[in-house]
Amino acid sequence: MKLHKIVLATTATVLAIGAGFAFAQFQKPEDAIKYRQSAFTVMANSFGKIGAVVKGEAPFNKDEVARNAAIVAMMSTLPWQAFGPGTEGGKAQSEIWSDNAKFKAASEKMQLAVVDLNKAAQSGDLENIKKAFSTAGASCKNCHDDFKKK
Amino acid sequence: MKLHKIVLATTATVLAIGAGFAFAQFQKPEDAIKYRQSAFTVMANSFGKIGAVVKGEAPFNKDEVARNAAIVAMMSTLPWQAFGPGTEGGKAQSEIWSDNAKFKAASEKMQLAVVDLNKAAQSGDLENIKKAFSTAGASCKNCHDDFKKK
Repeated sequence: MKLHKIVLATTATVLAIGAGFAFAQFQKPEDAIKYRQSAFTVMANSFGKIGAVVKGEAPFNKDEVARNAAIVAMMSTLPWQAFGPGTEGGKAQSEIWSDNAKFKAASEKMQLAVVDLNKAAQSGDLENIKKAFSTAGASCKNCHDDFKKK
Repeated sequence: MKLHKIVLATTATVLAIGAGFAFAQFQKPEDAIKYRQSAFTVMANSFGKIGAVVKGEAPFNKDEVARNAAIVAMMSTLPWQAFGPGTEGGKAQSEIWSDNAKFKAASEKMQLAVVDLNKAAQSGDLENIKKAFSTAGASCKNCHDDFKKK
């Protein structure tokens, strides 16, 4: 059965999406922590599936990579609304709040990197996917190094 | 700043998407449980935001409702791959595995209902959104009554 293609119209203005969702209300800090961890869990799963293809551990199925990249691109816009004031906890370092501008910049770098990954994935060129995956992965690691508890 | 519109090309063939992702490997049952719960958490959050609008508890912002419906539609296709054999646990009732055909039918009913919700949301007609939301909500409840632990 042919996979139905999901088209995500993503551009550099992806950052505007997040802006519209800044600090949506969560009833309790635990709800915010659960939400952001859930968004990262779903994102990491699809990112990891692309990684397996990039590393040659899984066959290159264009439709599946394109679908996973679309999931990653959408998920990448979601966690930030759940890092509002008073939601410290979980795996989040306190620097997210004490140096929020740096955290925001790192999150935006990642979102732009996965927009590029999604574009490469939709085009179906494996070499471009590999490059974009590497850049996106570096943007994840960069942010985790500074802002995620070990 | 204007929200960038995300377009999900969803049709009744949405079910084909899930089929392509059936039983992706998870290292451990706990990973599958964490993944499916995460997908439901993200889906429920966006569904709840639409619900607040439908109930008149939040203002009707067409772009936000459309975006949340697109998130719900995408998320609705994800959890099922994580209900594979040997992944019993969490809030899942054993009937998911012992009466899997019924569970699958309920999951497909929900996925089709949220495709309709997404169509209504993209069109921006609040009355249609209310109707589609009600049908979608009933499909959630129906499946939870039979297959989710209290």
